[in-house]
This record gives sequence, C-alpha cells and structure tokens, in this order.
Amino acid sequence: MEKEPVGGQYRVARPLFSEDSFSGQYKKIYRPHKDLLDHVRGCFTCDSKRVKNAALSLLPIIGWMKTYRIKEWLLGDIVAGVSTGLVAVLQGLAFALLASLPPGYGLYAAFFPALMYFFLGTSRHISVGPFPVLSLMVGAVVTRLVPGDGPPANITGFEGLTMDQQRVVVASSVTFLMGIFQLAMGVLQVGFIVIYLSDTLVSGFTTAAAVNILVSQLKFVFGLNVPGFSGPLNIFYTLESILLQITKTNVADLITSIVIMVAVFIVKEINDRFKSKLPVPIPIEIIMTVIACGVSYGANFEERFNVTVVGTMVNGYEAPSAPNLQVMQHGAVDAFTTAIVGFAVAFSVAKVYSAKHDYTIDGNQELIAFGASNIFGAAFQSFAASTALSRTAVQESTGGKTQIASLVSAMIALIVTVGIGFLLEPLPRSVLGALVIVNLKGMLMQFKEIPYLWARDKADFVIWIVTCAACVILGLDLGLAVGVGVELIAVVFRAQFPRCSVLANIKGTDIYRDRKDYLSTYEPEGVKIFKIPSPIFFANIEFFKDKLIQAVGFSPLRVLRKRNKALRKIRKMLKDGELHMTPSGIKALDFSSTENWEDEGNTEELDQPVDFSDLPVQVNWRTELPGNISVPPVDIHSLVLDFSAVSFIDISALKGLKMTLKEFIRVDVEVYIVACDVHIWEKLHNCMFFDDEIKTSMFYPTIHDAMLHILAKHRDCLKETENEKEADFKLGSSDGLNLRGMDQILVSNMFPNGL
Amino acid sequence: MEKEPVGGQYRVARPLFSEDSFSGQYKKIYRPHKDLLDHVRGCFTCDSKRVKNAALSLLPIIGWMKTYRIKEWLLGDIVAGVSTGLVAVLQGLAFALLASLPPGYGLYAAFFPALMYFFLGTSRHISVGPFPVLSLMVGAVVTRLVPGDGPPANITGFEGLTMDQQRVVVASSVTFLMGIFQLAMGVLQVGFIVIYLSDTLVSGFTTAAAVNILVSQLKFVFGLNVPGFSGPLNIFYTLESILLQITKTNVADLITSIVIMVAVFIVKEINDRFKSKLPVPIPIEIIMTVIACGVSYGANFEERFNVTVVGTMVNGYEAPSAPNLQVMQHGAVDAFTTAIVGFAVAFSVAKVYSAKHDYTIDGNQELIAFGASNIFGAAFQSFAASTALSRTAVQESTGGKTQIASLVSAMIALIVTVGIGFLLEPLPRSVLGALVIVNLKGMLMQFKEIPYLWARDKADFVIWIVTCAACVILGLDLGLAVGVGVELIAVVFRAQFPRCSVLANIKGTDIYRDRKDYLSTYEPEGVKIFKIPSPIFFANIEFFKDKLIQAVGFSPLRVLRKRNKALRKIRKMLKDGELHMTPSGIKALDFSSTENWEDEGNTEELDQPVDFSDLPVQVNWRTELPGNISVPPVDIHSLVLDFSAVSFIDISALKGLKMTLKEFIRVDVEVYIVACDVHIWEKLHNCMFFDDEIKTSMFYPTIHDAMLHILAKHRDCLKETENEKEADFKLGSSDGLNLRGMDQILVSNMFPNGL
Repeated sequence: MEKEPVGGQYRVARPLFSEDSFSGQYKKIYRPHKDLLDHVRGCFTCDSKRVKNAALSLLPIIGWMKTYRIKEWLLGDIVAGVSTGLVAVLQGLAFALLASLPPGYGLYAAFFPALMYFFLGTSRHISVGPFPVLSLMVGAVVTRLVPGDGPPANITGFEGLTMDQQRVVVASSVTFLMGIFQLAMGVLQVGFIVIYLSDTLVSGFTTAAAVNILVSQLKFVFGLNVPGFSGPLNIFYTLESILLQITKTNVADLITSIVIMVAVFIVKEINDRFKSKLPVPIPIEIIMTVIACGVSYGANFEERFNVTVVGTMVNGYEAPSAPNLQVMQHGAVDAFTTAIVGFAVAFSVAKVYSAKHDYTIDGNQELIAFGASNIFGAAFQSFAASTALSRTAVQESTGGKTQIASLVSAMIALIVTVGIGFLLEPLPRSVLGALVIVNLKGMLMQFKEIPYLWARDKADFVIWIVTCAACVILGLDLGLAVGVGVELIAVVFRAQFPRCSVLANIKGTDIYRDRKDYLSTYEPEGVKIFKIPSPIFFANIEFFKDKLIQAVGFSPLRVLRKRNKALRKIRKMLKDGELHMTPSGIKALDFSSTENWEDEGNTEELDQPVDFSDLPVQVNWRTELPGNISVPPVDIHSLVLDFSAVSFIDISALKGLKMTLKEFIRVDVEVYIVACDVHIWEKLHNCMFFDDEIKTSMFYPTIHDAMLHILAKHRDCLKETENEKEADFKLGSSDGLNLRGMDQILVSNMFPNGL
Repeated sequence: MEKEPVGGQYRVARPLFSEDSFSGQYKKIYRPHKDLLDHVRGCFTCDSKRVKNAALSLLPIIGWMKTYRIKEWLLGDIVAGVSTGLVAVLQGLAFALLASLPPGYGLYAAFFPALMYFFLGTSRHISVGPFPVLSLMVGAVVTRLVPGDGPPANITGFEGLTMDQQRVVVASSVTFLMGIFQLAMGVLQVGFIVIYLSDTLVSGFTTAAAVNILVSQLKFVFGLNVPGFSGPLNIFYTLESILLQITKTNVADLITSIVIMVAVFIVKEINDRFKSKLPVPIPIEIIMTVIACGVSYGANFEERFNVTVVGTMVNGYEAPSAPNLQVMQHGAVDAFTTAIVGFAVAFSVAKVYSAKHDYTIDGNQELIAFGASNIFGAAFQSFAASTALSRTAVQESTGGKTQIASLVSAMIALIVTVGIGFLLEPLPRSVLGALVIVNLKGMLMQFKEIPYLWARDKADFVIWIVTCAACVILGLDLGLAVGVGVELIAVVFRAQFPRCSVLANIKGTDIYRDRKDYLSTYEPEGVKIFKIPSPIFFANIEFFKDKLIQAVGFSPLRVLRKRNKALRKIRKMLKDGELHMTPSGIKALDFSSTENWEDEGNTEELDQPVDFSDLPVQVNWRTELPGNISVPPVDIHSLVLDFSAVSFIDISALKGLKMTLKEFIRVDVEVYIVACDVHIWEKLHNCMFFDDEIKTSMFYPTIHDAMLHILAKHRDCLKETENEKEADFKLGSSDGLNLRGMDQILVSNMFPNGL
C-alpha cells in the first residue's frame, strides 16, 4: 500500500477483501467479554483499599478538611457565608410562602439541611437550602392535604392541630420521604438517571415552574385571600379566583409590590451591566427588605392598611419529631418527583462550579448527602432543600471556597431564628412575593428558546412545548413525567424514521453517495446499494423492508411465490404433455389457456427456494413463459446493504432482516453487507443468523470492495449481454454449474432468449 | 481511478478529498426539502381521483365483490363458513365465560361484528369474533364494576337489573367505547402505533394472558364458585380462593374436564402429526361438545351431580340499546388497551394471510372496520371482537376465499341463537373451560422463548420478563403499558451505552479497526481515531465526552485552564522582572517560589483560547516551565472522530459536542470529523455549529483521507523531531506563522527544548 500522500493524492493498492478473507489475513486478538457474572463479582469484591475509599467517599469532609488552607480561605469563607446567610434568610421566608407554610419555617430550611450537607456533600460551592420550584411542589401536596377553604384530609395525627401546624406536618413528612428516596437512590448508585432530564426538558419544566410560581405569588401582590388549589388545572382555578376578587385588591400591597419590583429590577440590570466595575453587586433585595420592614413598622401597615405581614416568627427550635406515615402515603408520588427534581437541580449547579474550580463531584454521594440533609431537616420541621442558583452564585462570587461558608450562612439563619427574627415580623408578605416574582425573569426568559428550537430541531421543540404545557396544565409532577415520556419517545422516533437512500459511486473515486445528490455518478446495472441510515429495531424493521422493496422495485417474496407457482404449472404442463417439442424449440400447445394458473394449495411450499432438481431444465425468468404464466421481473443481480450506521439491532429486527435477506437470495439476488460493526457481527453470529443461505461470505469491509467483487463476478455476463445488445443480466446463469449438458439446449430452444 | 479488479486487487488513485474539496469538485444537486407546510398541503389536496379512491377504500367490499368468482369460490366459502361457524359458536360460549358473562352472549359476539366487518374489512380471510385475551380484558372491567360477591358499582342505570344484566351492560358499554377508540384511531390514521407492540412484547403479553386465562378457567374445571377479582394481584386472589375451596371440588366437573382435555389434546397432536395425510383435521372439539351435551342431558348432570351447565340460552335478539356513559367513564382506560390489543391481534393475523395470498390490507381501514364492528356489536349487547388465530386458520384451511365465508359463519351463529340454541343448554360449563385451557398450549409454549432470549439479547429478555410479570401481577392493561414503557426505554438504552473504540490503521490497507482487536496495526504518534458508535443525544453526550477524554488521556478543558493560568503567571513574572535573560536563555530568578500560582479570579477568561498576542513569546507547553508552573501534557496533535454510525444528533448533544470540540481546538489539537452523514451535516449547518474555530474544513469523507492529510501536514514536524530523537510533536509550531522573527530565538533560549 502506498500510504504517502503524493501531491494530495489518495492512492491505495491492496488485495480485495471480503470480511472472510480479511480475517484470514489479519488475525483478530481473542478478547474474552466479561459476562454478567464477572461484573457482579467485580461489584462485590472487597479489599482494604476499597473499604478505605468507600469510607472516604462517604464522608467527603475528611478529604477537604485535611487540605483546608486557613490563612487563605477562612476569611473568604466567612465573608461569603455572611452574605449568603442574609440572602438565605430572605429566600427562606419567601419560599416558605411558596410551600404554603408560615414564613418562619423557611429559616429552618436555611439551617438544618446545610448542616448535614457540610459533612456529606462533595460540592464545595453550592449553598444548600430552599429552592423555589421545589417549595412550590411541596406546596402542592400541602394545599391538597390541608386546603385553605375546606376540611383537611382525614389523617390520624391532625386532630388538635391548627391549620398551619397541619401544613408543617405535611411539608416535613413529604420532605422526609423525599430524603429517603434520595438516600435510597444514592445507595443503589442510580444517580445517573438525572441524565434523562435533558437541557430541553429542564428548560421547559423550569419555565412552566416559573409560570406556576408567578401565579402563586399574585395573591400576595394583590393582597387577596386565595385558597390553595391543587391537582391538574390548579393554575387556572387560582387565576380565576384572583380575577373574581380583583376589585378587593389591597392597594397598599399592590403599591409596595410594584415599588419593590421596579427598584429591584432596575438595580439588578445595573448590577448586570456594570458587573466588571462594581466590587460586589448591590444587595438590593436586602436593602429593600430593610426599608420595607422599617416603613411597615413605622407606618403600621398591618393595622392601618390591613396588609398581611410575616407576623409571629418561629422562636427557637422544636424537638425533632417523627414524620406522619399517612401523609407519606398520600404524598409518595410527589415526594419521588421532588426527590428527582431537587437532586437534578443541585447536581447541575454543583457540576457548573466543580468544572469551574476543577474538582470532581460524585453524583451518588450527592444523592446520599441530599437524602441525609432532607431527612435530618424534616425531623426538625424543615421542608425540601436543594440549592438555588442565585444563592450559590452569591456564595461563590463573594469568595466562598468551601462548605465552611455554608456553615457560616447557616449560623446567620440560626441567629435570626433565635435572636433577631422579631425584626422581620412587620415585613409585608407582598414584599416577599414581589421579590420572588422579580427573580423569575431569568426563568421566564427561557420562552425565547421556542423559536430557536423550532428552527433547529422539531423534536426538541415538541419536547419543550409538551413539557411546559403539561407542567402548567397538569402540575409539575405529572408534567415532568409526561415530559420524560415524550423525550424518550422522541429518541425512538428519531431512530425510527430516518431518511433511507440508494447510493451510487461518484465517478473516479471509491466514494459512494446518495445518487439523487450528485450528477456524475456511476451505477452498474443490476446492482443496488441501499444505505440503512440508523439502528434497526422492532419499530423500524418493517419501514426498512418497505423502503428496500421500493428501492429495488419489486417484492422478493411475491416474485419467489410467483416463480414457484409458475414452476408448479410448468411441471404439470410437462407431465400432461402440454409442452410440445418442435424443431424450433418447445412450444406450449395451447397458449391461449384461460385457466387460472395461480392455484392455491400448500402455500408454505411457495416460500421455499426455487427447486429445479426434478426438472430437466432451468428456467430463465426474464423471458416470456408459456401457458399464460407471467412472473414479475427482477432487474438486479446484486444488493449491497450499507450497515455503517447500524449501531444496534434487536431480536425482532434480526428475524425480519434474516427473512428479507432470504427472500432476496431465493430470487437469485446476491446480497452483500458492508461496513458492519464488529459488535453487530458478533451479535448476528450469536443469534444463529448464518445458515446455508445466509453466509458469512456476504460481508465486505467497504462498499467498494463489494462492488469490485460484484463487477469481477459479473464481467463475463456483461460482455455476453453486450454482444446480444441487451443490458440485462441473465440471472439464471450465475450458477450455471447446475446445468446438465443437453438440457441446456432444450431450454435455450424452449425460451428463445437464451438461458 | 482504476476500477477494474486486477486479480482480486483493490486499487484506488484519486485526489485526496476533504468534504470541502469534494463538494468543490462534485457539485451537489439542489434538492429542496419539503417543509411541514408542504406536507400539510399534500394531506389536504383534494381531487376527484382522491375522492374516488377514498370512497373505495372506505368500502372495500365494492372492490372484491366486483372480482368475485362465483363458480370457483362460492362453494369453498360456504364449506369454510359452516365449519368456522360451528367453531365460532363454541368459542363464543367459552369466551363469554372469560368475560364473566352468560355463555349465550358469546353468540352475539360471533354474529354482529362479523356482519359489519363484511362490508368494511380489507382482509378476506380473518374470522371476526371473540378473542380469548380480549374477552378476559373485558371480563376484568365486568368483575370490577359488578363483582360476584359484593354490591355493584354505584352507576345510574343498574337499578332493577339482575347481576347478569348489569354485566352485559358493562361489557357492551366498554366494547362500544373500544369501538369508538378504534374508529377514531383509524380516522386519524394512527394505525402505525401497533408497530410498538414488538414480537417480544406480544410474546410476553400473550403468555401472561394465557396464564390469566388458565387461572380464570380453573373454577369451571373444579366446579367451584369463585368471585371475580379485579385489579392488581387478582390472579393470586383467585388462586388463593380456589386453593381454600379445593376440598369442595365437584368431582363430576373435574372428571369431565380431564377427559375432554386429554381427548382433545391427543387428537390435536394427531391432527398435527398427520397434517399432510388427513383431508381435514378431525373436529375433535365439536365432537366432544356434542358428546358432552348428550351425556350431560342423558345422565342429568345438572341435578344429579350439581354440575353448572350453560343453562338458558339467549333467545333471539334484543332491540339495540345505548351504552351506559358512566360505565364508559369507569372503563375508559380498559377500553383503550382493549382497542389497541384487539386491533394488534387482528392486524397481525390479517397480515399473515394477506402475505400468503398476496393482497394488501390497509391498517387504518382495518381500524375503521373493527371500530365500526365493535360499535355495531355493542349496540346489540355483543362484547369485544377481534379475531382468533385458531378460528381464522379453520376458515382459511377449509377453503374460505373471502368474507362471504364469515357471513355464512355468522348465519350459523344466527341459526343457533334463534333456533337450536336450547340443544346446548345441558352442556356443562366445565367442558367449555376445559376446551379453553387445552387451546392455551401454543401460548404457554412461549415460555420456551426465555432461555432463547437470554442467550441472544439481554434487553429483549428483560422486556419479555417484565412484560409477562407485569401482566400477571398488575393485570393485562397496566402490564401492557409497563411493557411498552420498558420497550421504549430499552431502545434508548441500546443507543445510550454503546461500546466506544479507538481505531487504528490495519497495516498495508486503508481499513481502520479497533486497535485492541488486531496485532498488525499502525498508529501514527499524536493521532487518535475515536469511533462514535451510535447516535448522539442528551442521554449519552456526557458518556461520550468521558470516553473521549479517557481515550486521549487528558481533559482538554483542564489543560486549557492550566495553560491560561500559566500564561497569566508568565505575564506577571515578565512584568515583575522575575524572568531574567541570561546568555544561555531566560531564567526565572526564583525557581523555588512556593507561591500558589493557580490563583482564582475571573475564571470565565480561563475558558477562552490561549492568547499569546500581548506576549513577546509563544510558549512550548511540552517543556518545563519556569516559576513552579506545570501544565498537564497533551500527547496528540490530531483527533479524528469517526461519525459513520451517528445516525442522529439532538440539540443537547450538538451543544455538548460543539463545546468539546472547541476545548480540543483551543489546546491546539486539530479535530477531524469523518464519514459524517449528509443529513447530520445539514443539521449542524442549520444549527450554527460552525464558527471561527469549528470550520467545515474539518470534515473528510473517509478516515484514510483525513489520515493522509494529517500525515502530510505533520511530516516535517516528524522529521525534525526524529532528528532530535524525540517522538513528540511540537504543538506550538503548527501555527508557526504567528511567530515574530527574533522572538523565536528568545523563546528557544528560554525553553531549552526548543519551540
């Protein structure tokens, strides 16, 4: 082989290979595949190193604490912790409202989970605590089991509790179960399932969540009393309820909200625009909160304008309590989706920062950490924790290097809880609502993806729209399930309806392309090259069969049956003496026979290979046959299937493929499979794909190898037919060895166009 | 190009092509793609021919009636009709028991649907009527809404009806809704959905159905009174109930059943074995039924042995009645699965015979036909109809040519209903149960597929097991849904976890194979060929990234960041005068600096391309760097990605791929994509994949083209390094044009190993 490029030349000279001859010349190294047992054994092997590693990976704090650089990092961690702590307190209060809980419980969510994560988490930068979407999902269970305008669900343990207490029980029980799910998934090492939440899906989901959050906060902005709806369509019921009451709007709430929203929005834009010039972003939310607290207290908003304020805060902590089993039963599905969503959000945020700061995080350990954090938090009446991107960004950008910052942030929540919480009591709830809404901007901006997706990928567009619509209409949990379903079906669809093509040689090269795309192509007559452009499986094997039949222009099974029927008829005619030998050849006595020669009978026989063994002749199917017999023509002698894009094949497809190949082989079409992946080949071998008719010799490494082989094999035929001024190949003659001397003359007499 | 095979030689000499130069030389024909609008327009175009065709396809009877050959076909149709009719009556009675209905209603199911199908069906051979699996599925709703041992569901319209009447209402209402679903699917042209019921799934499903049927018939065999259980685990409750009562077994029933089963089983084996010698199979079931009727009547089984007999038959027909809307609400899910299963079974049977007799059937018209048949039947108290393979086999093998045979068969049912039905009244129900059970043999034999699937395809094995187990445990409807879900996930899994490989040239050829598989391979240093062996989508893009990083041995992003950090440090050192020029080159003043050079700061900058523009030197990253700086080594200069098996790519994968490619390009690795499908290329183009860094010039038609290009490009480097007795490529020099004259000397002094 000349491998050197000579002036940009591509020159190859090597033997022509079929896969058989190739493997004869180049020995394959035997590599035993690990079977299932080996894998299982591998999983359960135990040695001291593994045990140590397992211990270390279960308590990541040991790892990073050993390398903690006090001088360099501690100050940064403390500064970051204090800033994050302030944000966390504010978000805690606001997100508790999303969960339909008294605001003070948000302080618990900003405290307990972070404590546990400190020991178990592998991310150094995320700020563990409440997350709006998650809070809303918990809120959906809360309002379902303890609705605002009706009796609570019939649950043991609710007796003697106020509505708020019942709600706290529901939230913490669901959070507990969510933690158990996360812990279990971590222990079972199934953290990988979050890869099924694709970017598109998450975008659609979070956009719908933003819409949900927006609607749920409107009641605070307008100062209305709206019962919590749950289940499908709840968003519309909520909107209806707001619109019906719109005249009762509390003007003080509305004005406060609008002022806050406008101020925060503008300052955030400034922060964004002058990012590089500002040493730290202006903490506008904290400033506005302090102002609002002061004004509300000074002007006595609560009594003068009947504004709903945060009110009595939690005061200190309560003893841990067991979750309510009945609530867990009622909220199992919600707990599961919450567990998935909570982990997916936290993991994706953690991944961003681990990539940025070049350390690794462990998905399964993260699941364990969040599971433990939520279980721990739930025992102390906290609700579902994950991470919020905004808060984590604050922690990282103000200099947080490790989870020490989160610990400091948790201390801030502690101080507010046990000490200065009362200062927040006059804060109007509308302020919290306004802060939540104004922070939805980023999530709502994702609507801009719609035209982008439409232009680029229709399937992704459908996934986005369906996920978003389902989440808005059915609620976040059901909607997410629908989205995942659509997404999986989309994968199947993409693999199922590929564009098949017939390839042709590009003149002067060994390159084969879609014959419709190029002008200067070369297609030897009688050869069809069909590219299978995707994996083959149960859902598209029929599709490929149809396309293949379309491409070659005939159904091999039909031809085979017609041929067998014709043969049966010829046999009968020979037996009955209806075929008569004349000096100029054999003639049928009665050519005008109107008898239907296609009699039925044992049809299974008709699918068998054409058998000439009991006949004195072979039949040339391309000529006119006697006795009213007609058989559909077959224009090709070779079919090349390009398998290069077949990345997998299942049992159904394998059976269907085998049957189709057999049908072609039985009508004397030689089938070649080229560029077949080695794993597919092994699979075919294991599944008894090969037999007398389907042989390994049909495999060729490239289309060009197969084509050269075909051309060499059929060169003689080509020359002959050229002499006869006919372009068609004589199919019967390819296995001419079967012919017996004088019968040949008989036949060539019988069918004047030659055998 | 020399295309002629010279003694089995493969010789090619052509210009070296990149995709760009290829498309320069060979112009592509512009083929506008149909967009969605065109497709929609195509669907709604209307002309007289289309209208006529639509009319014809809606009433297929017009087509085949015109070509009916009375002389040849009529006798066969009548004979076949009578035989099928007898079987249909018997099956009707038996399958009505499966549906928990009085046996007589089975006669309706053997009559009405066939009438309607006669006009609308496109299959000429199937015998429309009750099907055991379908009957059982209807029975599940019947026993759920009207249980045998409790009050019926609270449904308006049940007042004043006997239990059997209520059950008939439930069955016919569900059948009505099932018909509506089928009709709707036919009109919406979504008949293709049955392709999702793969062979494996159907095998698992029908096996579970056989188990369900077996268990449901045991009560008749033992003559026990078992309430109908429904919902998940009902099969176990039924078994428990039977076991608890086993001592109350009616010995007469048991003996009758065993005798029938043994006799039928043996004769069926004989029929099978001497298939070719017997003119027609022995109609053993009809013979046994007649005998059993006679014996039961003569010996007065009903009173003497307390045997439950068929009892009062339906007598004639009732006026049509409207379905019960409330029942339809309660049974909507069941009706949907029944609609799917009923159609799938009928269509697959019809397909077998249409292929055998070489005519086409139309899936959507079949849906319309079955929909209409079921709606029509339901109006007359019939229950769900599809086809039974056994009955259709009888019809075809006894000479049925068209649906005339089905019409005759329906007439037999009519005669029994209005005339001689009373003759069947003494027939013990245990006989019907025994007949159903003995016919399950074929379906139960499918258990043999388990080891076959295990050996051949683990995914198909899992699908079979899960479908079968889910159908047994959860019931047929839920189980089917679970099966379909698992099946779709299996497709995703197959595409998701392929075996990646690094390819190497097979010495002396232009063929590239997995380097682990062959001994005589050639891998030029600095070149990695990575084969992506499957489509790329959201669920496996990360997997591929990891595999790629594993294959090349470094993470490009990490290297890029380290390099940028190092550069920042060098800049600082140059500015601070810490890099000092000596006669023997540049030295750092203080090599032992312990300062951590990897300071943080703006990390986003670190992901940008390495920028030497403000430095007087370019850095050779392979040498030791001054000032304690170390950067991970990059061993390759070229990366070739084999895209031949990438059959589709989604938006998430596209983004991930683009990012990864950029990372490689930014650490001076040239990336080549080869054998990319033209549709993928177009998609990349549409999605703004290309920019300053990712250029279309990276595409090559074959691996060998790319490899020749790489070798030509790096030949000079190779020679140089060989002189220096170093095998590594100097990565910095590939874009040596940026170097400014004398700086080059400076740098080669600074880093002794040369630029």
